[in-house]
Amino acid sequence: MGLTDLVLVNPRCFPDDEATRLAAGAEDVIDAARVAETLSDAVGDCVQVVGASARLRSMPLPHYDEPDEMARDVVEKAITDPVALVFGRERFGLTNDEIGHCSHQVSIPANPDYGILNLSQAVQVLAYEVFRAWRRRPGSGFIPQRPAHDRPPTHEQLHHFHSHLSRVMQASGFLTQPHAHTEKQLQALFARAQPSRKELSLLRGLLSALEPKDAGEN
Amino acid sequence: MGLTDLVLVNPRCFPDDEATRLAAGAEDVIDAARVAETLSDAVGDCVQVVGASARLRSMPLPHYDEPDEMARDVVEKAITDPVALVFGRERFGLTNDEIGHCSHQVSIPANPDYGILNLSQAVQVLAYEVFRAWRRRPGSGFIPQRPAHDRPPTHEQLHHFHSHLSRVMQASGFLTQPHAHTEKQLQALFARAQPSRKELSLLRGLLSALEPKDAGEN
Repeated sequence: MGLTDLVLVNPRCFPDDEATRLAAGAEDVIDAARVAETLSDAVGDCVQVVGASARLRSMPLPHYDEPDEMARDVVEKAITDPVALVFGRERFGLTNDEIGHCSHQVSIPANPDYGILNLSQAVQVLAYEVFRAWRRRPGSGFIPQRPAHDRPPTHEQLHHFHSHLSRVMQASGFLTQPHAHTEKQLQALFARAQPSRKELSLLRGLLSALEPKDAGEN
Repeated sequence: MGLTDLVLVNPRCFPDDEATRLAAGAEDVIDAARVAETLSDAVGDCVQVVGASARLRSMPLPHYDEPDEMARDVVEKAITDPVALVFGRERFGLTNDEIGHCSHQVSIPANPDYGILNLSQAVQVLAYEVFRAWRRRPGSGFIPQRPAHDRPPTHEQLHHFHSHLSRVMQASGFLTQPHAHTEKQLQALFARAQPSRKELSLLRGLLSALEPKDAGEN
Protein backbone atom coordinates (compact mmCIF):
# COMPACT_ATOMS: atom_id res chain seq x y z
CA MET A 1 0.00 0.00 0.00
CA GLY A 2 2.99 2.30 -0.48
CA LEU A 3 3.85 2.79 3.20
CA THR A 4 7.56 2.42 3.85
CA ASP A 5 8.45 3.92 7.21
CA LEU A 6 8.02 1.11 9.73
CA VAL A 7 9.03 1.70 13.35
CA LEU A 8 9.04 -1.19 15.80
CA VAL A 9 8.72 -0.30 19.47
CA ASN A 10 10.72 -2.54 21.76
CA PRO A 11 10.30 -5.65 19.59
CA ARG A 12 10.80 -9.08 21.10
CA CYS A 13 13.09 -10.08 18.25
CA PHE A 14 14.46 -7.96 15.41
CA PRO A 15 15.92 -8.52 12.85
CA ASP A 16 13.91 -11.71 12.60
CA ASP A 17 14.26 -14.31 9.86
CA GLU A 18 10.58 -15.13 10.00
CA ALA A 19 9.60 -11.49 9.47
CA THR A 20 11.90 -11.30 6.45
CA ARG A 21 10.49 -14.52 5.07
CA LEU A 22 6.88 -13.39 5.51
CA ALA A 23 7.63 -10.02 3.90
CA ALA A 24 7.59 -11.94 0.57
CA GLY A 25 8.86 -9.24 -1.74
CA ALA A 26 8.60 -6.27 0.62
CA GLU A 27 11.91 -6.97 2.34
CA ASP A 28 12.91 -3.36 1.69
CA VAL A 29 10.32 -2.26 4.29
CA ILE A 30 11.72 -4.72 6.84
CA ASP A 31 15.32 -3.80 6.04
CA ALA A 32 14.59 -0.10 6.49
CA ALA A 33 12.58 -0.59 9.70
CA ARG A 34 13.75 1.43 12.68
CA VAL A 35 13.63 0.24 16.27
CA ALA A 36 12.55 2.59 19.06
CA GLU A 37 12.75 1.87 22.77
CA THR A 38 9.48 3.57 23.61
CA LEU A 39 6.36 4.62 21.72
CA SER A 40 7.06 8.17 22.82
CA ASP A 41 10.45 8.05 21.04
CA ALA A 42 8.87 6.48 17.96
CA VAL A 43 6.29 9.23 17.42
CA GLY A 44 8.24 12.18 18.86
CA ASP A 45 8.40 14.12 15.58
CA CYS A 46 4.82 13.43 14.49
CA VAL A 47 2.06 16.04 14.41
CA GLN A 48 -0.72 13.47 14.33
CA VAL A 49 -0.55 10.08 16.04
CA VAL A 50 -3.53 7.84 15.37
CA GLY A 51 -3.95 4.76 17.55
CA ALA A 52 -5.91 1.85 16.10
CA SER A 53 -8.20 0.35 18.68
CA ALA A 54 -11.18 -1.93 18.51
CA ARG A 55 -12.09 -1.59 22.15
CA LEU A 56 -14.06 1.28 23.55
CA ARG A 57 -11.92 3.43 25.80
CA SER A 58 -12.87 5.84 28.46
CA MET A 59 -10.16 8.15 27.12
CA PRO A 60 -11.91 11.01 25.33
CA LEU A 61 -9.43 11.44 22.48
CA PRO A 62 -10.82 12.63 19.18
CA HIS A 63 -12.16 9.44 17.64
CA TYR A 64 -12.57 8.54 13.98
CA ASP A 65 -15.48 6.17 13.44
CA GLU A 66 -14.65 6.03 9.74
CA PRO A 67 -11.16 5.04 8.57
CA ASP A 68 -11.52 7.06 5.36
CA GLU A 69 -11.93 10.30 7.35
CA MET A 70 -8.81 9.45 9.33
CA ALA A 71 -6.93 8.72 6.11
CA ARG A 72 -7.85 12.03 4.51
CA ASP A 73 -6.70 13.91 7.61
CA VAL A 74 -3.35 12.15 7.98
CA VAL A 75 -2.58 12.41 4.27
CA GLU A 76 -3.28 16.15 4.40
CA LYS A 77 -1.10 16.64 7.48
CA ALA A 78 1.64 14.42 6.06
CA ILE A 79 2.22 16.96 3.27
CA THR A 80 4.17 19.10 5.71
CA ASP A 81 4.92 16.97 8.77
CA PRO A 82 5.37 13.36 9.83
CA VAL A 83 2.31 11.47 11.03
CA ALA A 84 1.93 8.00 12.50
CA LEU A 85 -0.50 5.12 12.66
CA VAL A 86 0.04 3.12 15.85
CA PHE A 87 -0.88 -0.54 16.21
CA GLY A 88 -0.75 -2.71 19.33
CA ARG A 89 -0.11 -6.36 19.91
CA GLU A 90 -1.99 -9.21 18.29
CA ARG A 91 -3.48 -10.37 21.61
CA PHE A 92 -4.43 -7.19 23.43
CA GLY A 93 -3.79 -4.18 21.23
CA LEU A 94 -2.59 -0.92 22.73
CA THR A 95 -2.41 -0.32 26.48
CA ASN A 96 -4.13 2.71 27.97
CA ASP A 97 -0.70 4.22 28.52
CA GLU A 98 0.11 3.79 24.83
CA ILE A 99 -3.24 5.27 23.76
CA GLY A 100 -2.24 8.19 25.97
CA HIS A 101 0.61 8.92 23.55
CA CYS A 102 -1.83 9.20 20.64
CA SER A 103 -3.55 12.37 19.49
CA HIS A 104 -6.44 10.48 17.90
CA GLN A 105 -8.06 7.07 17.87
CA VAL A 106 -9.52 5.18 14.95
CA SER A 107 -11.63 2.06 14.87
CA ILE A 108 -12.69 -0.09 11.95
CA PRO A 109 -16.45 -0.59 11.76
CA ALA A 110 -17.27 -4.28 11.91
CA ASN A 111 -19.98 -6.75 12.68
CA PRO A 112 -20.92 -5.87 16.30
CA ASP A 113 -21.03 -9.58 17.15
CA TYR A 114 -17.41 -10.06 16.23
CA GLY A 115 -15.72 -6.70 16.08
CA ILE A 116 -12.07 -7.61 16.55
CA LEU A 117 -9.74 -7.85 13.56
CA ASN A 118 -6.40 -9.61 13.45
CA LEU A 119 -3.50 -7.19 13.67
CA SER A 120 -2.49 -7.84 10.06
CA GLN A 121 -6.05 -7.25 8.86
CA ALA A 122 -6.32 -3.97 10.76
CA VAL A 123 -3.00 -2.80 9.33
CA GLN A 124 -4.15 -3.78 5.82
CA VAL A 125 -7.46 -1.90 6.05
CA LEU A 126 -5.95 1.30 7.42
CA ALA A 127 -3.00 1.21 5.00
CA TYR A 128 -5.50 0.66 2.16
CA GLU A 129 -7.43 3.74 3.28
CA VAL A 130 -4.28 5.86 3.56
CA PHE A 131 -3.18 4.74 0.09
CA ARG A 132 -6.59 5.57 -1.30
CA ALA A 133 -6.59 9.03 0.29
CA TRP A 134 -3.11 9.57 -1.11
CA ARG A 135 -3.88 8.48 -4.66
CA ARG A 136 -7.17 10.43 -4.74
CA ARG A 137 -5.67 13.70 -3.61
CA PRO A 138 -5.36 16.31 -6.37
CA GLY A 139 -2.18 15.87 -8.37
CA SER A 140 -1.25 12.43 -7.02
CA GLY A 141 -0.54 11.26 -10.55
CA PHE A 142 -1.78 7.77 -9.68
CA ILE A 143 -3.06 5.84 -12.69
CA PRO A 144 -4.94 2.60 -11.96
CA GLN A 145 -3.58 -0.44 -13.73
CA ARG A 146 -6.05 -1.49 -16.36
CA PRO A 147 -6.34 -4.69 -18.32
CA ALA A 148 -4.81 -4.19 -21.75
CA HIS A 149 -8.14 -3.99 -23.53
CA ASP A 150 -8.37 -3.33 -27.19
CA ARG A 151 -8.88 0.21 -28.43
CA PRO A 152 -12.48 1.39 -28.50
CA PRO A 153 -14.01 1.62 -31.98
CA THR A 154 -14.53 4.90 -33.78
CA HIS A 155 -17.95 6.39 -34.32
CA GLU A 156 -17.73 5.38 -37.99
CA GLN A 157 -16.88 1.75 -37.16
CA LEU A 158 -19.87 1.57 -34.81
CA HIS A 159 -22.08 3.11 -37.49
CA HIS A 160 -20.98 0.49 -40.05
CA PHE A 161 -21.69 -2.25 -37.52
CA HIS A 162 -25.21 -1.07 -36.83
CA SER A 163 -25.93 -0.65 -40.57
CA HIS A 164 -24.72 -4.19 -41.11
CA LEU A 165 -26.89 -5.46 -38.23
CA SER A 166 -29.96 -3.70 -39.72
CA ARG A 167 -29.33 -5.25 -43.13
CA VAL A 168 -29.04 -8.72 -41.63
CA MET A 169 -32.19 -8.30 -39.54
CA GLN A 170 -34.15 -7.25 -42.61
CA ALA A 171 -32.63 -9.87 -44.90
CA SER A 172 -33.45 -12.59 -42.39
CA GLY A 173 -37.07 -11.55 -42.21
CA PHE A 174 -36.77 -10.66 -38.50
CA LEU A 175 -37.66 -7.10 -39.44
CA THR A 176 -39.94 -6.64 -42.40
CA GLN A 177 -39.24 -2.92 -42.66
CA PRO A 178 -36.79 -0.47 -41.10
CA HIS A 179 -37.84 -0.39 -37.45
CA ALA A 180 -36.29 2.52 -35.60
CA HIS A 181 -37.34 1.37 -32.13
CA THR A 182 -35.74 -2.09 -32.33
CA GLU A 183 -32.62 -0.59 -33.87
CA LYS A 184 -32.34 1.99 -31.10
CA GLN A 185 -32.75 -0.73 -28.44
CA LEU A 186 -29.90 -2.71 -29.95
CA GLN A 187 -27.77 0.41 -30.28
CA ALA A 188 -28.28 1.09 -26.58
CA LEU A 189 -27.42 -2.50 -25.70
CA PHE A 190 -24.14 -2.39 -27.62
CA ALA A 191 -23.36 1.07 -26.24
CA ARG A 192 -23.60 -0.41 -22.72
CA ALA A 193 -21.43 -3.37 -23.69
CA GLN A 194 -18.75 -1.01 -25.02
CA PRO A 195 -17.27 -3.47 -27.51
CA SER A 196 -13.61 -3.02 -28.39
CA ARG A 197 -12.49 -2.65 -32.01
CA LYS A 198 -11.49 -6.31 -32.00
CA GLU A 199 -14.85 -7.44 -30.62
CA LEU A 200 -16.69 -5.32 -33.15
CA SER A 201 -14.74 -6.99 -35.92
CA LEU A 202 -15.73 -10.38 -34.43
CA LEU A 203 -19.38 -9.34 -34.49
CA ARG A 204 -19.07 -8.11 -38.07
CA GLY A 205 -17.66 -11.52 -39.04
CA LEU A 206 -20.58 -13.24 -37.30
CA LEU A 207 -23.08 -10.99 -39.10
CA SER A 208 -21.45 -11.82 -42.45
CA ALA A 209 -21.70 -15.53 -41.69
CA LEU A 210 -25.38 -15.19 -40.76
CA GLU A 211 -26.20 -13.01 -43.76
CA PRO A 212 -28.24 -14.85 -46.41
CA LYS A 213 -25.84 -15.48 -49.27
CA ASP A 214 -28.07 -13.74 -51.86
CA ALA A 215 -28.68 -10.63 -49.70
CA GLY A 216 -25.36 -9.12 -50.69
CA GLU A 217 -24.77 -5.46 -49.91
CA ASN A 218 -28.17 -4.19 -50.91
CA MET B 1 -17.29 -7.90 8.38
CA GLY B 2 -20.72 -9.51 8.56
CA LEU B 3 -20.31 -11.94 5.66
CA THR B 4 -21.53 -15.42 6.57
CA ASP B 5 -22.07 -17.47 3.42
CA LEU B 6 -18.73 -19.13 2.68
CA VAL B 7 -18.49 -21.63 -0.16
CA LEU B 8 -15.31 -23.65 -0.63
CA VAL B 9 -14.67 -25.00 -4.12
CA ASN B 10 -13.03 -28.40 -4.17
CA PRO B 11 -10.99 -27.78 -0.97
CA ARG B 12 -7.92 -29.87 -0.28
CA CYS B 13 -9.11 -30.57 3.25
CA PHE B 14 -12.43 -29.70 4.90
CA PRO B 15 -13.50 -29.75 7.68
CA ASP B 16 -10.04 -28.81 8.85
CA ASP B 17 -8.98 -28.40 12.48
CA GLU B 18 -6.53 -25.66 11.57
CA ALA B 19 -9.24 -23.63 9.82
CA THR B 20 -11.47 -23.93 12.88
CA ARG B 21 -8.61 -22.93 15.16
CA LEU B 22 -7.71 -19.89 13.05
CA ALA B 23 -11.34 -18.78 12.87
CA ALA B 24 -10.87 -17.61 16.47
CA GLY B 25 -14.44 -16.71 17.36
CA ALA B 26 -15.96 -16.93 13.89
CA GLU B 27 -16.37 -20.71 13.97
CA ASP B 28 -20.01 -20.23 12.96
CA VAL B 29 -18.84 -19.15 9.50
CA ILE B 30 -16.64 -22.25 9.18
CA ASP B 31 -19.34 -24.54 10.52
CA ALA B 32 -21.87 -23.20 8.04
CA ALA B 33 -19.47 -23.30 5.07
CA ARG B 34 -20.69 -25.24 2.05
CA VAL B 35 -18.46 -27.27 -0.24
CA ALA B 36 -18.96 -27.18 -4.00
CA GLU B 37 -17.24 -29.41 -6.52
CA THR B 38 -16.82 -26.70 -9.15
CA LEU B 39 -16.86 -22.92 -9.21
CA SER B 40 -19.72 -23.10 -11.66
CA ASP B 41 -21.80 -25.02 -9.07
CA ALA B 42 -20.81 -22.57 -6.34
CA VAL B 43 -22.03 -19.46 -8.15
CA GLY B 44 -24.87 -21.02 -10.16
CA ASP B 45 -27.62 -18.98 -8.49
CA CYS B 46 -25.74 -15.66 -8.43
CA VAL B 47 -26.63 -12.68 -10.60
CA GLN B 48 -23.26 -11.02 -10.14
CA VAL B 49 -19.99 -12.92 -9.73
CA VAL B 50 -16.98 -10.74 -9.03
CA GLY B 51 -13.54 -12.29 -9.35
CA ALA B 52 -10.71 -10.72 -7.35
CA SER B 53 -7.56 -10.56 -9.41
CA ALA B 54 -4.35 -8.62 -9.09
CA ARG B 55 -3.01 -9.65 -12.44
CA LEU B 56 -3.97 -7.94 -15.64
CA ARG B 57 -5.99 -10.25 -17.85
CA SER B 58 -6.65 -10.13 -21.51
CA MET B 59 -10.25 -11.11 -20.74
CA PRO B 60 -12.37 -8.02 -21.31
CA LEU B 61 -14.82 -8.53 -18.47
CA PRO B 62 -16.25 -5.40 -16.90
CA HIS B 63 -13.53 -4.36 -14.48
CA TYR B 64 -13.80 -2.42 -11.22
CA ASP B 65 -10.67 -0.39 -10.56
CA GLU B 66 -12.19 0.77 -7.28
CA PRO B 67 -13.39 -1.77 -4.70
CA ASP B 68 -15.93 0.70 -3.29
CA GLU B 69 -17.73 0.88 -6.65
CA MET B 70 -17.83 -2.90 -6.78
CA ALA B 71 -19.18 -3.02 -3.22
CA ARG B 72 -22.00 -0.56 -3.94
CA ASP B 73 -23.04 -2.59 -6.99
CA VAL B 74 -23.03 -5.99 -5.28
CA VAL B 75 -24.85 -4.68 -2.20
CA GLU B 76 -27.53 -3.19 -4.43
CA LYS B 77 -27.92 -6.40 -6.43
CA ALA B 78 -27.88 -8.52 -3.26
CA ILE B 79 -31.15 -6.92 -2.15
CA THR B 80 -33.01 -9.18 -4.55
CA ASP B 81 -30.60 -11.92 -5.66
CA PRO B 82 -27.50 -13.78 -4.50
CA VAL B 83 -24.12 -12.36 -5.51
CA ALA B 84 -20.60 -13.71 -5.03
CA LEU B 85 -17.06 -12.57 -4.50
CA VAL B 86 -14.62 -15.14 -5.84
CA PHE B 87 -11.06 -15.53 -4.57
CA GLY B 88 -8.33 -17.78 -5.91
CA ARG B 89 -5.43 -19.58 -4.31
CA GLU B 90 -2.76 -17.95 -2.18
CA ARG B 91 -0.02 -18.70 -4.73
CA PHE B 92 -1.57 -18.01 -8.11
CA GLY B 93 -5.07 -16.65 -7.66
CA LEU B 94 -7.81 -17.53 -10.13
CA THR B 95 -7.14 -19.41 -13.36
CA ASN B 96 -8.33 -17.95 -16.66
CA ASP B 97 -10.97 -20.66 -16.73
CA GLU B 98 -12.22 -19.57 -13.30
CA ILE B 99 -12.24 -15.89 -14.31
CA GLY B 100 -14.36 -17.06 -17.22
CA HIS B 101 -17.09 -17.99 -14.73
CA CYS B 102 -17.13 -14.44 -13.36
CA SER B 103 -19.32 -11.62 -14.62
CA HIS B 104 -16.95 -8.93 -13.35
CA GLN B 105 -13.41 -8.48 -12.11
CA VAL B 106 -12.14 -6.28 -9.31
CA SER B 107 -8.63 -5.35 -8.36
CA ILE B 108 -7.34 -3.55 -5.30
CA PRO B 109 -5.25 -0.49 -6.13
CA ALA B 110 -1.79 -0.86 -4.65
CA ASN B 111 1.76 0.32 -4.89
CA PRO B 112 2.66 -0.50 -8.52
CA ASP B 113 6.05 -1.83 -7.38
CA TYR B 114 4.43 -4.46 -5.20
CA GLY B 115 0.86 -4.90 -6.24
CA ILE B 116 0.05 -8.37 -4.94
CA LEU B 117 -1.82 -8.83 -1.66
CA ASN B 118 -1.97 -11.98 0.41
CA LEU B 119 -5.23 -13.84 -0.03
CA SER B 120 -6.36 -13.01 3.51
CA GLN B 121 -5.59 -9.32 2.99
CA ALA B 122 -7.51 -9.20 -0.29
CA VAL B 123 -10.50 -10.89 1.36
CA GLN B 124 -10.32 -8.43 4.26
CA VAL B 125 -10.24 -5.33 2.04
CA LEU B 126 -13.12 -6.43 -0.19
CA ALA B 127 -15.20 -7.64 2.77
CA TYR B 128 -14.53 -4.29 4.49
CA GLU B 129 -15.80 -2.46 1.40
CA VAL B 130 -18.91 -4.63 1.13
CA PHE B 131 -19.65 -4.08 4.83
CA ARG B 132 -19.19 -0.34 4.38
CA ALA B 133 -21.51 -0.26 1.36
CA TRP B 134 -24.03 -2.27 3.36
CA ARG B 135 -23.95 -0.13 6.49
CA ARG B 136 -24.05 3.13 4.47
CA ARG B 137 -27.08 2.18 2.40
CA PRO B 138 -30.27 4.00 3.40
CA GLY B 139 -32.05 2.29 6.26
CA SER B 140 -29.21 -0.07 7.23
CA GLY B 141 -29.73 0.85 10.87
CA PHE B 142 -26.01 0.53 11.54
CA ILE B 143 -24.81 2.61 14.48
CA PRO B 144 -21.05 2.96 14.94
CA GLN B 145 -19.76 1.96 18.34
CA ARG B 146 -18.63 5.07 20.14
CA PRO B 147 -16.55 5.49 23.25
CA ALA B 148 -18.81 6.15 26.23
CA HIS B 149 -18.01 9.86 26.44
CA ASP B 150 -19.64 12.11 28.91
CA ARG B 151 -22.68 14.15 27.93
CA PRO B 152 -21.94 17.45 26.20
CA PRO B 153 -22.48 20.55 28.37
CA THR B 154 -25.47 22.84 27.96
CA HIS B 155 -25.17 26.30 26.53
CA GLU B 156 -25.63 27.73 30.02
CA GLN B 157 -22.84 25.57 31.48
CA LEU B 158 -20.49 26.75 28.73
CA HIS B 159 -21.52 30.34 29.35
CA HIS B 160 -20.73 30.02 33.09
CA PHE B 161 -17.36 28.52 32.23
CA HIS B 162 -16.41 31.37 29.90
CA SER B 163 -17.56 33.98 32.44
CA HIS B 164 -15.44 32.26 35.07
CA LEU B 165 -12.45 32.21 32.70
CA SER B 166 -12.86 35.94 31.99
CA ARG B 167 -13.00 36.75 35.71
CA VAL B 168 -9.83 34.76 36.35
CA MET B 169 -7.98 36.38 33.46
CA GLN B 170 -8.85 39.84 34.73
CA ALA B 171 -8.20 39.04 38.36
CA SER B 172 -4.77 37.61 37.46
CA GLY B 173 -3.80 40.78 35.62
CA PHE B 174 -3.51 38.87 32.30
CA LEU B 175 -6.28 41.09 30.96
CA THR B 176 -6.47 44.60 32.37
CA GLN B 177 -9.92 45.21 30.90
CA PRO B 178 -12.63 43.13 29.21
CA HIS B 179 -11.01 42.11 25.93
CA ALA B 180 -13.54 40.72 23.47
CA HIS B 181 -10.97 39.49 20.93
CA THR B 182 -9.02 37.30 23.37
CA GLU B 183 -12.23 35.98 24.86
CA LYS B 184 -13.59 35.09 21.45
CA GLN B 185 -10.35 33.28 20.56
CA LEU B 186 -10.60 31.17 23.70
CA GLN B 187 -14.28 30.50 23.10
CA ALA B 188 -13.42 29.21 19.63
CA LEU B 189 -10.63 27.05 21.02
CA PHE B 190 -12.92 25.41 23.59
CA ALA B 191 -15.67 25.04 20.99
CA ARG B 192 -13.25 23.01 18.86
CA ALA B 193 -12.19 20.91 21.84
CA GLN B 194 -15.85 20.07 22.57
CA PRO B 195 -15.35 19.47 26.29
CA SER B 196 -17.75 17.10 27.96
CA ARG B 197 -19.76 18.14 31.03
CA LYS B 198 -17.26 16.28 33.20
CA GLU B 199 -14.28 17.97 31.58
CA LEU B 200 -15.91 21.37 31.92
CA SER B 201 -16.36 20.74 35.59
CA LEU B 202 -12.67 19.80 35.81
CA LEU B 203 -11.76 23.10 34.13
CA ARG B 204 -14.05 25.05 36.48
CA GLY B 205 -12.25 23.42 39.41
CA LEU B 206 -8.90 24.41 37.95
CA LEU B 207 -10.08 27.99 37.43
CA SER B 208 -11.25 28.15 41.05
CA ALA B 209 -7.88 26.90 42.23
CA LEU B 210 -6.06 29.50 40.12
CA GLU B 211 -8.36 32.32 41.17
CA PRO B 212 -6.69 34.82 43.55
CA LYS B 213 -8.24 34.14 46.96
CA ASP B 214 -9.38 37.75 47.41
CA ALA B 215 -10.94 38.04 43.95
CA GLY B 216 -14.05 36.18 45.00
CA GLU B 217 -17.04 36.31 42.73
CA ASN B 218 -16.80 39.94 41.72
